[in-house]
Amino acid sequence: MLTQVTPWQAITTALTEIVGAEGIVTRSEELFVYECDGLASYRQQPKIVVLPTSTEQVAEVVKVCDHYRIPFVARGSGTGLSGGALPHLEGVLIVTSRMNQVLEVDLENQRVVVQPGVINTWVTQAVTNQGLFYAPDPSSQIICSVGGNVAENSGGVHCLKYGVTTNHVLGLTVVLPSGDVIQIGSALPEGPGYDLTGVFVGSEGTLGIATEITLRVLPTPEMIQVLLADFTTIDAAAVTVSDIIKAGIIPAGMEIMDNLSINAVEDVVATQCYPRDAGAVLLIEVDGLAAEVPYLSQRVMEICSQNGARQVRIAEDVTERLKMWQGRKAAFAAAGRLSPNYFVQDGVIPRTQLPYVLQEINALSEQYGYKIANVFHAGDGNLHPLILYNEAIPGQLEAVEELGGEILKLCVRVGGSISGEHGIGSDKKCFMPEMFSPADLEMMASLRRAFDPKLIANPDKVFPTPKTCGEAAHSQRFLAQAGVELF
Amino acid sequence: MLTQVTPWQAITTALTEIVGAEGIVTRSEELFVYECDGLASYRQQPKIVVLPTSTEQVAEVVKVCDHYRIPFVARGSGTGLSGGALPHLEGVLIVTSRMNQVLEVDLENQRVVVQPGVINTWVTQAVTNQGLFYAPDPSSQIICSVGGNVAENSGGVHCLKYGVTTNHVLGLTVVLPSGDVIQIGSALPEGPGYDLTGVFVGSEGTLGIATEITLRVLPTPEMIQVLLADFTTIDAAAVTVSDIIKAGIIPAGMEIMDNLSINAVEDVVATQCYPRDAGAVLLIEVDGLAAEVPYLSQRVMEICSQNGARQVRIAEDVTERLKMWQGRKAAFAAAGRLSPNYFVQDGVIPRTQLPYVLQEINALSEQYGYKIANVFHAGDGNLHPLILYNEAIPGQLEAVEELGGEILKLCVRVGGSISGEHGIGSDKKCFMPEMFSPADLEMMASLRRAFDPKLIANPDKVFPTPKTCGEAAHSQRFLAQAGVELF
Repeated sequence: MLTQVTPWQAITTALTEIVGAEGIVTRSEELFVYECDGLASYRQQPKIVVLPTSTEQVAEVVKVCDHYRIPFVARGSGTGLSGGALPHLEGVLIVTSRMNQVLEVDLENQRVVVQPGVINTWVTQAVTNQGLFYAPDPSSQIICSVGGNVAENSGGVHCLKYGVTTNHVLGLTVVLPSGDVIQIGSALPEGPGYDLTGVFVGSEGTLGIATEITLRVLPTPEMIQVLLADFTTIDAAAVTVSDIIKAGIIPAGMEIMDNLSINAVEDVVATQCYPRDAGAVLLIEVDGLAAEVPYLSQRVMEICSQNGARQVRIAEDVTERLKMWQGRKAAFAAAGRLSPNYFVQDGVIPRTQLPYVLQEINALSEQYGYKIANVFHAGDGNLHPLILYNEAIPGQLEAVEELGGEILKLCVRVGGSISGEHGIGSDKKCFMPEMFSPADLEMMASLRRAFDPKLIANPDKVFPTPKTCGEAAHSQRFLAQAGVELF
Repeated sequence: MLTQVTPWQAITTALTEIVGAEGIVTRSEELFVYECDGLASYRQQPKIVVLPTSTEQVAEVVKVCDHYRIPFVARGSGTGLSGGALPHLEGVLIVTSRMNQVLEVDLENQRVVVQPGVINTWVTQAVTNQGLFYAPDPSSQIICSVGGNVAENSGGVHCLKYGVTTNHVLGLTVVLPSGDVIQIGSALPEGPGYDLTGVFVGSEGTLGIATEITLRVLPTPEMIQVLLADFTTIDAAAVTVSDIIKAGIIPAGMEIMDNLSINAVEDVVATQCYPRDAGAVLLIEVDGLAAEVPYLSQRVMEICSQNGARQVRIAEDVTERLKMWQGRKAAFAAAGRLSPNYFVQDGVIPRTQLPYVLQEINALSEQYGYKIANVFHAGDGNLHPLILYNEAIPGQLEAVEELGGEILKLCVRVGGSISGEHGIGSDKKCFMPEMFSPADLEMMASLRRAFDPKLIANPDKVFPTPKTCGEAAHSQRFLAQAGVELF
């Protein structure tokens, strides 16, 4: 319906005046590259893509959307895994890739101000010679944008010790859905007024667009040691993780890979660090002062041994350390070799529930008849089961999505969460009622309306809607592919 | 005006049915004790005080307020320093002191669930035998309530390393201003949906009342060492603080006391730790594993010496350590001996601006002719200048408030904040425009309306209103004392 009344020609002209012809994409064959993010099973083209370069341009673009009441979706590098940057069929996609400037490096106060299109690793690169680093490190860090990290509150392998993105964002310049520009947070850790930084980070583009982001950077640890322990069972590895935390040690990261993942990784990258017959390997990174790290590593080794580790190795040099990590970082890619497709789930559970939940996932795997490789941020209880399937076989995608849903429900049942670090986006909105009561969701919805009364900022994401939930999750996509208008 | 139309008799009956006669206070001579919190220069009596015991009772009480559209204010122990719990002349004061149960101790997952009236130190007491502690430690910790800590996002001397209250609240049961009950946050560090925990903590009672609070507790550090360094100038102490952080060391706390404070403390508690001729003393607490603490202390000592410390002492045993802290903890009380009254200010500045700001405070002190004792959380840049005056002398309170205001504006000018840990409350709302633009404040106000569309939850606090700002800050109080109705 909207297509009949929305004056796209006038809108295109208005947007071109703001960003110039080089900042506009409208031809369908060019829009193609923007039709999905990392959740490639959902695809749709926006009407227009704009690539602004400044806060002022974003504000003007958003004012045009507000004026015509058309949806806008922000997109960074498009590496998100929950479809948060899936375009709106009748909307504008605002891409931040030309907003790629590091605006300020303040070494004295350990902060860096960036535009949202700056790539995650560039932040560390900007300060590494000064002995500083930016802690959040999603696996996609060499390509993902800081703006996208803010939208999804991204984590990484080191978030056990250092926290997720929200713990490192000090302040933001935000273009509200009205086009007004506000400053939220401050360079100080705590300020007066409502903590809008916490609300904004992780709001998945539904409250506005961050156009300048002040990040905290930390002193590079004096020493880093990586330990690799192998266990005959994944349970023993899981209990070890709890025991290390209980001993008062917070490693920078603790990652578990199961036997299926180990063999996939060894097939592909041949690290030769991971014993192929292990039930699980546990990778532990300990960092800090040179005076404390060897002592901590020693205690970690003892705890591993007490839990029956067959072997615990400390990487002898940087090369070996990187090799140990290489396997973990290649795990998703390696899973691609095990099967034509895989579906990554992202759930969180209390650490102490790890052994039980892994058993249940195993039972679900057998019940549904799909193999599941387990690779996860064990310290945080953040699971990433990789369900292996073949999209070419009719029915498999749907079955695997159902299986993934059962895993999420299991996480909620043990007091966990339906998302650890990938967000809700398009993918998981139907699971929100598993975690939140109607009153909880209504409170969040009314907060959203406070920011966005016209509901034009990334609509149809995060919140469950009767239109899409309760039907098959993909019906919207299939209808769109069939050319059916969805309004 | 409202007094003529509000059916207080019916309201009293309804509230008595909910909480019982023993949970209601309406006689003026009994209401007297509730007429102010720790900011005793603002005083007014509520119409009714209710003391509920459960979430259900709070929800029912709030529903009555919602039904009659009358304001309610929540109060814990009443130790707040910004007038956040100042009652509303035409409202209900909801006091949480009977909600004093520790509801759950979950050692495995290191969390404790409490009612809001539980006293801060009780949390640590509930887990201390298990080697755990609750980190936020306001100076009033033996009397202040966890509910009040949540409302004001309280800090303490250890928040440099451990963060403030918001970093330790995992989840909340909240009675909204409608009387609806929602769950926000979760026992997990990060969950999906908007981060309402961050918004709620520090919202000073304007978004609802927390009735169950899930707190994170931490393993007690294996070793604690306290160092006391004395300097001939406060500047040297301030530069030392920055240098310690720059060296990658995060002590549990770093506190500075100036010469005036040192002498006041020695007069009163005679610790004999603080040299009376020092320009400033710097107290540093280092904690962690037994393997790292002595090494860290050594490095801290070196940095102190490099900055010209005359002497650096490490407390030899627990007795000496507590003695060193005793002086700092008695500083506010000791200031009471220097002068009939003192006015505590609470501002934050970037750590690197400490020397400049202390100089400027000194200049303001001379300009206004009032002595200022400086005692502060130096590691966080959180200043607590104590302005000494005599309330009995007409004009002194007003002059001192003006001087306090100048200090706040100074903090904002150097990139700081008008409040570190005491909140805005009644005291500082007129300074909010110093920090926030009209668009920033409007966004916060619209968030407030999303929670509280009738504006009955602690109204007239936090946000500047033309009615009270722009006039003398105390006119409302003086009018009230004169018996003038303020509606």
